[in-house]
Amino acid sequence: MSSIAEELAKKQKEISVAEFFEKNKHILGFDSATRALISTVKEAVDNSLDACEEAGILPEIYVDVKKINQNDYRIVTEDNGPGIVKKQIPQVFGRLLYGSRFHSIRQARGQQGIGISAVVMYSQLTTGKPAKIRSKIHGSDVARDISLMLNTKKNRPELINGDFVIWDKEHGTRFEVQVRGKYVAGKQSVIEYLKGTAIVNPHAQITYVAPDGSRIVFQRASEQLPPQTREIMPHPEGIELGELLNMAKDADSIKMSSFLVNDFSRISHRVAREILELAEIPQSQSPKRLTLDQAKGIIDAIKKVKIMAPETDCLSPIGPSLIKKGLKNVLGELKAEFYAPPVTREPRVYAGNPFIVEVGIVYGGHLSKDNQVQILRFANRVPLLYQQGACVITKAIEAIDWRRYGLEQRGGRGIPYGPAIILVHVASTKIPFTSESKEAIANIEVIQQEIELAIKACGRRLRTHLNKADRKAKTRVKFDIVQEILPMIAKKSAKIVGKPVPKLNGTITKIMNVVWIDDSVEYSKKRHKITINVYNYTPKQRNFEIVLVIPNSGSSAISKAEPQPKIEKNGMVLCWPIKRLPTTEMMRITIELSGLDKDAYDENEIYISGIDPVHVIGAEALPGDWDVDKLVVTEALVEEIVEEEEEEEADYDEQGEVLSDEG
Amino acid sequence: MSSIAEELAKKQKEISVAEFFEKNKHILGFDSATRALISTVKEAVDNSLDACEEAGILPEIYVDVKKINQNDYRIVTEDNGPGIVKKQIPQVFGRLLYGSRFHSIRQARGQQGIGISAVVMYSQLTTGKPAKIRSKIHGSDVARDISLMLNTKKNRPELINGDFVIWDKEHGTRFEVQVRGKYVAGKQSVIEYLKGTAIVNPHAQITYVAPDGSRIVFQRASEQLPPQTREIMPHPEGIELGELLNMAKDADSIKMSSFLVNDFSRISHRVAREILELAEIPQSQSPKRLTLDQAKGIIDAIKKVKIMAPETDCLSPIGPSLIKKGLKNVLGELKAEFYAPPVTREPRVYAGNPFIVEVGIVYGGHLSKDNQVQILRFANRVPLLYQQGACVITKAIEAIDWRRYGLEQRGGRGIPYGPAIILVHVASTKIPFTSESKEAIANIEVIQQEIELAIKACGRRLRTHLNKADRKAKTRVKFDIVQEILPMIAKKSAKIVGKPVPKLNGTITKIMNVVWIDDSVEYSKKRHKITINVYNYTPKQRNFEIVLVIPNSGSSAISKAEPQPKIEKNGMVLCWPIKRLPTTEMMRITIELSGLDKDAYDENEIYISGIDPVHVIGAEALPGDWDVDKLVVTEALVEEIVEEEEEEEADYDEQGEVLSDEG
Repeated sequence: MSSIAEELAKKQKEISVAEFFEKNKHILGFDSATRALISTVKEAVDNSLDACEEAGILPEIYVDVKKINQNDYRIVTEDNGPGIVKKQIPQVFGRLLYGSRFHSIRQARGQQGIGISAVVMYSQLTTGKPAKIRSKIHGSDVARDISLMLNTKKNRPELINGDFVIWDKEHGTRFEVQVRGKYVAGKQSVIEYLKGTAIVNPHAQITYVAPDGSRIVFQRASEQLPPQTREIMPHPEGIELGELLNMAKDADSIKMSSFLVNDFSRISHRVAREILELAEIPQSQSPKRLTLDQAKGIIDAIKKVKIMAPETDCLSPIGPSLIKKGLKNVLGELKAEFYAPPVTREPRVYAGNPFIVEVGIVYGGHLSKDNQVQILRFANRVPLLYQQGACVITKAIEAIDWRRYGLEQRGGRGIPYGPAIILVHVASTKIPFTSESKEAIANIEVIQQEIELAIKACGRRLRTHLNKADRKAKTRVKFDIVQEILPMIAKKSAKIVGKPVPKLNGTITKIMNVVWIDDSVEYSKKRHKITINVYNYTPKQRNFEIVLVIPNSGSSAISKAEPQPKIEKNGMVLCWPIKRLPTTEMMRITIELSGLDKDAYDENEIYISGIDPVHVIGAEALPGDWDVDKLVVTEALVEEIVEEEEEEEADYDEQGEVLSDEG
Repeated sequence: MSSIAEELAKKQKEISVAEFFEKNKHILGFDSATRALISTVKEAVDNSLDACEEAGILPEIYVDVKKINQNDYRIVTEDNGPGIVKKQIPQVFGRLLYGSRFHSIRQARGQQGIGISAVVMYSQLTTGKPAKIRSKIHGSDVARDISLMLNTKKNRPELINGDFVIWDKEHGTRFEVQVRGKYVAGKQSVIEYLKGTAIVNPHAQITYVAPDGSRIVFQRASEQLPPQTREIMPHPEGIELGELLNMAKDADSIKMSSFLVNDFSRISHRVAREILELAEIPQSQSPKRLTLDQAKGIIDAIKKVKIMAPETDCLSPIGPSLIKKGLKNVLGELKAEFYAPPVTREPRVYAGNPFIVEVGIVYGGHLSKDNQVQILRFANRVPLLYQQGACVITKAIEAIDWRRYGLEQRGGRGIPYGPAIILVHVASTKIPFTSESKEAIANIEVIQQEIELAIKACGRRLRTHLNKADRKAKTRVKFDIVQEILPMIAKKSAKIVGKPVPKLNGTITKIMNVVWIDDSVEYSKKRHKITINVYNYTPKQRNFEIVLVIPNSGSSAISKAEPQPKIEKNGMVLCWPIKRLPTTEMMRITIELSGLDKDAYDENEIYISGIDPVHVIGAEALPGDWDVDKLVVTEALVEEIVEEEEEEEADYDEQGEVLSDEG
């Protein structure tokens, strides 16, 4: 039997990381010929975008996919990025787990140092052909031209050819491979990936030549690069014990206090002192001598000391207006009924990494009622097309009771049905992908919670809209009867019995007993015209206030307001006191807005106060303790409602882990 | 700008594979404290089972989970495996991508050489504690005792302590770590993982001591090891071009012909000759000189030449009776209405790796009608608890129109609703997991197809059962009226009008007009008693045949049959010709079976032929061109129906890739 143990021992050997991934290419996103083609384009384009942004260059990217025989495609990508220095080219393209972004804490598309070398490996595995790379850096006369393959046993590049060539481009990189692939249209396709990329990267110009020779240019929609993200130190929240011990061992600082201040973000000298005191560690102790128990003490102290939330300038959210644009773009020619104002949450931290969640929802109109809602997932401005079922975004959507927000859902769990698209973007200095193919975000509890809160905030606006539409529709019938049929009946009856037509106002108000608010937005001559008609169909005179929340893009202005609002804050919140509106009478408010995009405003957000909201159709009660005099902006309002809900959900949070563990 | 390229170049560096996984521990299955605990137990137990089976030892495994403080658990596993030789211990436990099973083609739980070292890494990351390993090989006086950590920068073990100790065990391995974890009950828990493992590994004895001190022993249910799986050469089907080129470069053979015969499975000398002729390569050419074009020629030739399906002795399916047992075990005290006979498909190949799919379905009874069906996933006899949404098993289930099989499903897509559990096992020499955490199988087209076919074969039996139940229930009402109420009415009417009771036979047969087959199975005194009552409720005399399919476990026997069947094949298929059964008469068949487990048989499978099946309630028509005289076994029957369907679905197969690409 000892021979068996020895027999087994003989078989034990090292597995090269490249061999591992060659045999597990599905882990890298090459599990089908269709996906392989998309993954190839994606890895190359993501690298180009990262390089351009790091160098502060507005990206100009060219993608060409050509069919070269029954199964194989040639893919070329070219960018105007800063280029790659000669010595690094083989390493960057011909070696797995080699890269510049793994060790830095900063939002980037690439993180792992795997993607593009994986493409090279897949290419040689399926077509036997080397990859060709051309790169030129600024100030250089010539470009470097290289053909290389990846030696999977050693995980090292093997140069096939190297040359210097003239390239009429100031700087940039060109990448060419041949891969076995399959070209399809549909939701999971090269063009959909590029479209999604263009939407959330409006500063990029992307030219795409498809296998049929057709050329599509995604024009740059903005000349501004997104604010450059800053590299930061790890945030102390969620740091692992082992990580802390390693950091201390490698620290340059000679004192514990300076180690904490220098090697973490958001630890001031005061906070460092507090932590060390709680952990009973002398400030002047060398970090190299930090013991296991001391490290545990620090971890415990971090939980007790108040530490600022992470910096946000390491993150680059998409922002509400681009999210809405993105959703419109997905709809194309189709019209929607309602765009819920997108929500961008405050940054949070998981395991030392800050992250931000953004959500947008579009509803109704031409969207199909019979299918599950469509989910659009983005991570660090990259569209995620595969592995939807594995993604925490999907889990979060499934965990919400959508019946509360007006969508159909069996048992209050699972992906809801209905005419809606839900867009979720997660931005982080490190996205915890479920695998190296970077198509699904792992099930991290705090990330799921944030996504749920963002979706719920957005969902509440959807609910408000649907309630309003629903109540209006129901009351509309009554309204029609009261307004048209009742007078006709009265007239006819009067004629028959030969008596004068009776006054119906009292009867009408008794039947209706509501304040009816009928509003509209129209766009013409570069202006948004808002009309709000207020009917008092109650039996008595009424006093109340009407609040209108409008978007403020900075360049927008109120060009007309009739009557003038009593209160106006930030050009966003307007308030009219309605005084002594007699029974059966009506008053009208008209506003004209200039300087807004047509698409930026298509539904009024109207609130009322000073009247029991059950008597009002067409506006919601001013929520919570929202006081007209304190009015700030819509987001504050949303935030306030969210916080209320957060309190409600404290129970949920406590058992959050168990819930999020669903598989 | 050149400075930017150079700036970026400075940041480029190598990423150690251990560093990579330390920062991406969620990829390894450590994304939550709950899951981390399960992953820890799982990796250790899977290793123990693999080692025992490779050494031909009946596994005896001990698992102990103890809470040691608020967040941390100590986990100990111990096995009676062959042990690990001294020199290898540090490598096996303290180095990622190191193992014995990666380079061999054979069914095993571990494949990657990552799992157990990942546990060691997670342990030190979260608790700072080293792992303790004790191992003893047969014939050795002492065991080796080691404490070690994993140096993540180098991906190498670091010995903390090493010793020799006396261990009163002949051979085996003990593993102890401390990890941050969370202990929960429910579908995703240590106990569920162990229960699932015990079900599909009945040869293993597993003792579990839970944190509350309770001890559960999963008794060995079989003294037989599953047949030892044989290591094989890659099957030529689906081999990649780059792989072929590498294999040729490394070949020991000096001629192409012997290279093909020696380094692949199922290539005979004749097949090798055929391939080389088609590819226009001389048989005597050295494999080392194989060119890219020649390799392409071989790949093309492989597709044209008839090559035998892969060997099956490299695979170890669970088998129908264990699948059924497994499903019963899941139900526990609950009773089900129907167990569809489990289906084990023939082996198929993806990318050179043979695989087998098995499916079992249980329906009705105490199972809840209101939820989605429960899915039980297994890969190489390991239960998969997480990442259900990412798994090809789930995709296959979602792609089936379950309305055809009697389950509720909106739009014919998605996980169906209804009182059912679906168990799917995929066994392969290499399971293509979506990530290193080995919790979901990747979306490989041919695997999805096989799963769908297996499920449909099983689903058809479910549909047959439901149809039968449904028709019987409907006809039962009629039957009751005819059998009981009609005669009563006749009697009373006759009394009232003072006339003799009329003969009702003609009336009854006119109303019913069916052959009614009423059957039952009872188990007592270690025998299954089968009764089949055949009523001719048609207006004329009938001739037809009744076919009964019974299980044959090898040890079972028919101890009584009344009347004797005319045909009997393999002790599994019995046939009685029913000759001239007069109208309104009944005949009875009784059978006694001995030697079968009580659970192995609980519903009769009855077919009829020689009569229009619309006139028969309680049996299905003999399907297709299934001829009583050619009868073999149930699986052949299932196979036949499956093949019919396969033809129907040829269209589907052709666009399979697109469909399977759904994300």
